[in-house]
Amino acid sequence: MKLYDCKIAPNPRRVRIFLAEKGIRLDTVEVDILGGENLGEAYRRINPRGLLPLLELDDGTRIDEVVAICRYFEEVQPEPPLLGTDPRSKALVVSRQRHMEFDGMIAASEVFRNSAPAFAQRSLPGAAAAGVAAIPQLVERGRRTLEHCFGELERYLGQSEFVAGDRFSLADITALCTVDFAGWAKIKVPEHHLNTHRWYKAVSARPSAAA
Amino acid sequence: MKLYDCKIAPNPRRVRIFLAEKGIRLDTVEVDILGGENLGEAYRRINPRGLLPLLELDDGTRIDEVVAICRYFEEVQPEPPLLGTDPRSKALVVSRQRHMEFDGMIAASEVFRNSAPAFAQRSLPGAAAAGVAAIPQLVERGRRTLEHCFGELERYLGQSEFVAGDRFSLADITALCTVDFAGWAKIKVPEHHLNTHRWYKAVSARPSAAA
Repeated sequence: MKLYDCKIAPNPRRVRIFLAEKGIRLDTVEVDILGGENLGEAYRRINPRGLLPLLELDDGTRIDEVVAICRYFEEVQPEPPLLGTDPRSKALVVSRQRHMEFDGMIAASEVFRNSAPAFAQRSLPGAAAAGVAAIPQLVERGRRTLEHCFGELERYLGQSEFVAGDRFSLADITALCTVDFAGWAKIKVPEHHLNTHRWYKAVSARPSAAA
Repeated sequence: MKLYDCKIAPNPRRVRIFLAEKGIRLDTVEVDILGGENLGEAYRRINPRGLLPLLELDDGTRIDEVVAICRYFEEVQPEPPLLGTDPRSKALVVSRQRHMEFDGMIAASEVFRNSAPAFAQRSLPGAAAAGVAAIPQLVERGRRTLEHCFGELERYLGQSEFVAGDRFSLADITALCTVDFAGWAKIKVPEHHLNTHRWYKAVSARPSAAA
């Protein structure tokens, strides 16, 4: 089994943190996104979508998409649970994870992709829209969506210790990676979001955060 | 328990099809997206994100996001399984579902939202970026991404009967809703995609498709 990885990229980091929380170590293959290796012919034969991370099982099955890879490991090694423990909490983790993903990770990606010179002809990650020029209006749209996301995050963390309740979950992982990714574009959690700062300090101090 | 629904919208339809496949009937509350009721104060008190569908449990818990609602019902009523049956197939359903969602549903939404006059000031669904004007370049980017999605779909359906293997799953539901949603913008599956046409005829004929 091996993981196609990219050390600097936020999405592979979500899987690395998930695996570290489970205590699972995998062989990895590093793919250079900044240099465009993910869009090259060799990697496109492995993942036609040109995205990372991707998990290759011993039988050759290839599973891409962060949440799918996490689902695989949650099933083969349920402890510690990172995707909920009963129907209600499982649904809540999926829901909050998606809030952080759609309003957070994707918004941060839009800000970054549409302003960084390295991605001037790669407005979307992956192969689907390779060659599509940056769309400057997405920077402002992304900023507004991220602001909204940070409001959601503060509200959730005012209600419970973690993003989706009393237990650390994939929703926290996505939120942590979003906050750090947004920082690349100098977008920061407002100072008065005290619950978020309390939470950020705690989750960043977990050994998994360095994965 | 009740479902906040919108009969004309593609995302609530995904949940309705899922429930119909499980044979589950719920009370519903219709919310008028076209008229902007989802962004009004009353619905924003129920779902601050202003999106549909949303499930309200008897204990008052509110779960939004299609995939989260489906996860809840898969857990409380596993039969028939619509999210896979073992670690590998569960991961594959999540992965393929997300391909159809990101490269399909979201791309179709971008085409539609950024070209339909009714949404000229609502480039993104929901409250996060309400008031953000349509971004015309997203129409072309969305078309290209959808074209790519249709290529993926044809490839998957050349390998197996359904989108994520030999069993009907949420990946098929998302793909079906994507094809129909793309049709609103006159974007059609190419005629030579014979596997997709074979599949589309079969899944559209299931009683659930009318839900």
